[in-house]
Amino acid sequence: MTTVSDRPLPPLPDPASGADAEDDARPGEIAVPLPDAYDAGVFYIGRIGTPWTRRADCPRNARGSDAVCTIEVDERWAAALTGVETCTHLLVLYWMDRARRDLVVQAPRHSTGSRGTFALRSPVRPNPIAASVVRLVGIDGTRLSVVGLDCLDGTPLVDIKPYFASTDAVGDAVVGWHAGQSK
Amino acid sequence: MTTVSDRPLPPLPDPASGADAEDDARPGEIAVPLPDAYDAGVFYIGRIGTPWTRRADCPRNARGSDAVCTIEVDERWAAALTGVETCTHLLVLYWMDRARRDLVVQAPRHSTGSRGTFALRSPVRPNPIAASVVRLVGIDGTRLSVVGLDCLDGTPLVDIKPYFASTDAVGDAVVGWHAGQSK
Repeated sequence: MTTVSDRPLPPLPDPASGADAEDDARPGEIAVPLPDAYDAGVFYIGRIGTPWTRRADCPRNARGSDAVCTIEVDERWAAALTGVETCTHLLVLYWMDRARRDLVVQAPRHSTGSRGTFALRSPVRPNPIAASVVRLVGIDGTRLSVVGLDCLDGTPLVDIKPYFASTDAVGDAVVGWHAGQSK
Repeated sequence: MTTVSDRPLPPLPDPASGADAEDDARPGEIAVPLPDAYDAGVFYIGRIGTPWTRRADCPRNARGSDAVCTIEVDERWAAALTGVETCTHLLVLYWMDRARRDLVVQAPRHSTGSRGTFALRSPVRPNPIAASVVRLVGIDGTRLSVVGLDCLDGTPLVDIKPYFASTDAVGDAVVGWHAGQSK
């Protein structure tokens, strides 16, 4: 049988040149050389459908729009959705495939000053995995309708998890630097 | 310069034979063939230190222990931690590198019946990325001390994000199948 180790990794774009001019480094930003090799491989397991086809149109965070978006799971994984219909909310992981990966300090457009990548929810990060809590409004076969996404139409899906308030909700959490600023 | 597309992907273990006998399929579980190729590559950006060296010792979820765990970020990404010290809570993504990836329906040991992978927080999933909300108790250089992890000592780190209560906390979320059962 075919093993995970046999699976080739297709070419990806150069992260520093970037697919999108909006990703060019700005004053105050710091880039580092990326490691020489990957450590693990990701399968895209579906695609996300949203109303937004340009980055400038995307809401600035996942509560910035009430638009109903779709999550289309590849048929291969259809059975993995069994039981998902009992969840009011899901944690969705998706791959921001147009983001560069080498910035450790960033100066977000909608904010003042520079901050470390791990203090930001920017798609630009070593592993461009976005995580959003969504409200499930319906399932039709392998297509989920959800509210709470902020990404470009066609963004690759990498995981869906049930959201457990008991472990995932911390209502009094504080991000100190974020004194009324956008993320 | 070296581009992302030049980076080779090292061999990974066969997911179906599995590194760990606990991953053998149980009655009621369903496996599917994995795709022929990866779509993207992950960099391990650090390691997680926990008190648990055997899976049987790990807490059953991230609220199952008050143990202070450590997150050691590789020096390459040190500057990306700027500002993280102002956060009370973080969303940590890590790679469950010992989990098989081909099960779409699972029968968890601590639960009754079978459920779809996307309705479970099991490490066994197409992309074995775990997501945990942790409380930050201290930072010393590139080492974070946190409460709220449940994984094996040495687990690879893939991302750290600030936890925003405004978008990440949904206190009234319900997982319908989970009527007092463990996840």
